[in-house]
Amino acid sequence: MTPSKQGALSRHNVPAPHADEAGPRAGERVTPTWLPDAWLARGFLRAMGSPAIRIVLANEQTVSTADAPPVATVRLTDRSTLFRLLYHPELEFGEAYVDGRIEVDGDLAKFLETVYQAPAHPLAERLLRRARRPRPNSLSGSRDNIHHHYDLGNDFYRLWLDERMLYTCAYFPTPDASLEDAQVAKMEHVCRKADLRPGDRVVEAGCGWGALALHMARHHGAQVRAFNISHEQVVYAREQAQREGLQAQVEFIEDDYRNISGEYDVFMSVGMLEHVGKEHYRELGGIIDRCLPAHGRGLIHTIGRSRPARLNAWIEKHIFPGAYPPTLREMMDIFEPYNLSVLDVENLRLHYAKTAAHWLARFQQSEDRVRQMCDERFVRAWRLYLAGTTAAFTASSLQLFQVAFARAHHNDMPWTRAHLYQESR
Amino acid sequence: MTPSKQGALSRHNVPAPHADEAGPRAGERVTPTWLPDAWLARGFLRAMGSPAIRIVLANEQTVSTADAPPVATVRLTDRSTLFRLLYHPELEFGEAYVDGRIEVDGDLAKFLETVYQAPAHPLAERLLRRARRPRPNSLSGSRDNIHHHYDLGNDFYRLWLDERMLYTCAYFPTPDASLEDAQVAKMEHVCRKADLRPGDRVVEAGCGWGALALHMARHHGAQVRAFNISHEQVVYAREQAQREGLQAQVEFIEDDYRNISGEYDVFMSVGMLEHVGKEHYRELGGIIDRCLPAHGRGLIHTIGRSRPARLNAWIEKHIFPGAYPPTLREMMDIFEPYNLSVLDVENLRLHYAKTAAHWLARFQQSEDRVRQMCDERFVRAWRLYLAGTTAAFTASSLQLFQVAFARAHHNDMPWTRAHLYQESR
Repeated sequence: MTPSKQGALSRHNVPAPHADEAGPRAGERVTPTWLPDAWLARGFLRAMGSPAIRIVLANEQTVSTADAPPVATVRLTDRSTLFRLLYHPELEFGEAYVDGRIEVDGDLAKFLETVYQAPAHPLAERLLRRARRPRPNSLSGSRDNIHHHYDLGNDFYRLWLDERMLYTCAYFPTPDASLEDAQVAKMEHVCRKADLRPGDRVVEAGCGWGALALHMARHHGAQVRAFNISHEQVVYAREQAQREGLQAQVEFIEDDYRNISGEYDVFMSVGMLEHVGKEHYRELGGIIDRCLPAHGRGLIHTIGRSRPARLNAWIEKHIFPGAYPPTLREMMDIFEPYNLSVLDVENLRLHYAKTAAHWLARFQQSEDRVRQMCDERFVRAWRLYLAGTTAAFTASSLQLFQVAFARAHHNDMPWTRAHLYQESR
Repeated sequence: MTPSKQGALSRHNVPAPHADEAGPRAGERVTPTWLPDAWLARGFLRAMGSPAIRIVLANEQTVSTADAPPVATVRLTDRSTLFRLLYHPELEFGEAYVDGRIEVDGDLAKFLETVYQAPAHPLAERLLRRARRPRPNSLSGSRDNIHHHYDLGNDFYRLWLDERMLYTCAYFPTPDASLEDAQVAKMEHVCRKADLRPGDRVVEAGCGWGALALHMARHHGAQVRAFNISHEQVVYAREQAQREGLQAQVEFIEDDYRNISGEYDVFMSVGMLEHVGKEHYRELGGIIDRCLPAHGRGLIHTIGRSRPARLNAWIEKHIFPGAYPPTLREMMDIFEPYNLSVLDVENLRLHYAKTAAHWLARFQQSEDRVRQMCDERFVRAWRLYLAGTTAAFTASSLQLFQVAFARAHHNDMPWTRAHLYQESR
């Protein structure tokens, strides 16, 4: 990894840990020492719905409010971390974990899943899980937001993604399929859902490292224009197209989806809507409306929610600035104003839980390498993010929607969805 | 058919035709005779988007604004019908067709499809296709609304429905499947989507003549409580359960869905939501929330829209009082407030077009019989309704949504949807 890549990695503006972990700390000076910490921690756990976890406080007191045996133990290394957690648990848990002020004994993903699934008090849920105001997704804001995450360096992502570098939910035909096979199956699944035909002109909004664009060209004879504002990804994708001799069929364009022009038979977007921001959905629908002819159709694949909520505050701050997972209701701002007909919605949240579990396992196998590339704080941040993703999809606090749609009067569509499940076409 | 059934049929409060079709009429006395009728008719056709149809006016003038050859010719028998059409086309077309003041030469469904698909001027669309205020769906209002349509007499529906009396969109595994097979396939499709298992307790909200309840019991070993406020349908369904020896497994309850109590593994509702009214969706969600345990799941099958609009004014007045086809966005009022996770949405609008085409063909073969049971006006009203249904689904002004959902934390679900497409289980 080059120094510039190192720079990109450390752009994760996680605050530096306190200089001396053992000595007295600035935060502790104002800590009210008369407060019974165990009493506070118990109240905190109850407000969180008494998940089956155990907290060990800095004074070695152990607290749990669950009847079930704990799935994991959380160790707080200092008093101030407890008080910070009370103030803003979602954000401060992440900060403290990255700092090393919190350690989790046990399976990190399982621990987070248990916390997510606990029936938190509604008031506590609102107060405690409050989110940050997302960073704006203006043209320049989007560029900054995407650069923050996706330009971390291809070498880094290669350590734990599949060989084709797909960084979106895979589709596992069977639970024991490999991640490699499941990513190919996902590409095939979305192509079939969009009823891709040889010669189709496809526009892809947000194309990652280009694997889907190349798949559509190679396996479905499509003519693809793929948009992405991540410079590193576009460079990689172009190289890949050259390597595979597909440069005449696939054009990678380093530009914002808002600048899409031309007419296409199919609009395809896998894993971009999370970065669009709901205030831009109607505008996105207008772009789709502008570029689809009377027989046009499309597919949007996105992380979503069953009820509206901002992204986890720590993830929004450090991992995905500006991101927002929509509900199906919110997504309808894309389709309704333009009378686009929604044909098929599939929720693949357990497939994302499995995808993220694969990523986490591969990441953990590569932690030494990541530590060399970067530092311990970065390793802890990404471990927490990947474990949290696994947990959030398992616990249903996140969903994964694939929404296939078409122009209202497009009647030349497959009669049923059976073709999605045939071995090959 | 007994006299009381005849009474039910003539409750369709279509106004009686004018006493003397040939002589002067009340409506005509105020008709401004100086208006150039052909000029008005041309303006009307242009505002409707110049569909490929021809109008022959009462004075024998022929009007068309389309470039394409007309798919059908509309004959107006008197001047006032033209003016009434201009005032409220959606409602007055139906009134005039039933009165015999309008005749359509050509395929009625194809004619309506052409009109629906024409790109009407947006302003014209709002002014001309304006809807009536739907009849309320209070407990007593719902009973009146449902009685109006579903208690017309089983003998009448038997003439043109399939042998099991399913009066909802069928599912055609292949386009040439018979209506009988397609209705069985639909029942199996929704059972699989709801992941029905032997011993499951199922509540069905709106059960028609009981075919699905009996199917769930016989083929999936379910224990079913089925609710319906149509007296004639419940009586028929109970007799059917007796005949099939399923009375221990299936209980038919003549009551409103709002009075559902108890706990069930599966909530099933096929073709009832249209009659619920969108102001009651949150309440319906509350009922689902109340009756589903942690592993609970369900399915709602309903006519819908791609963008919000009231039901066709004539249909709302004479065929389905109180009915409203929701958009997916509007349907989310059922799920979002209760954190129910939407798993699968399938749009089967072309299957409804085909279902309605089957019904129309059977109805037209039985018109003499219906005429004997009732009168010509009733025949014309139902012909128009069934042709209009075929046309509306073909032209995408109506959609058919099957929405499968589950409790948020229900993870024990089929891994993919492939099992929906296996020959048998």
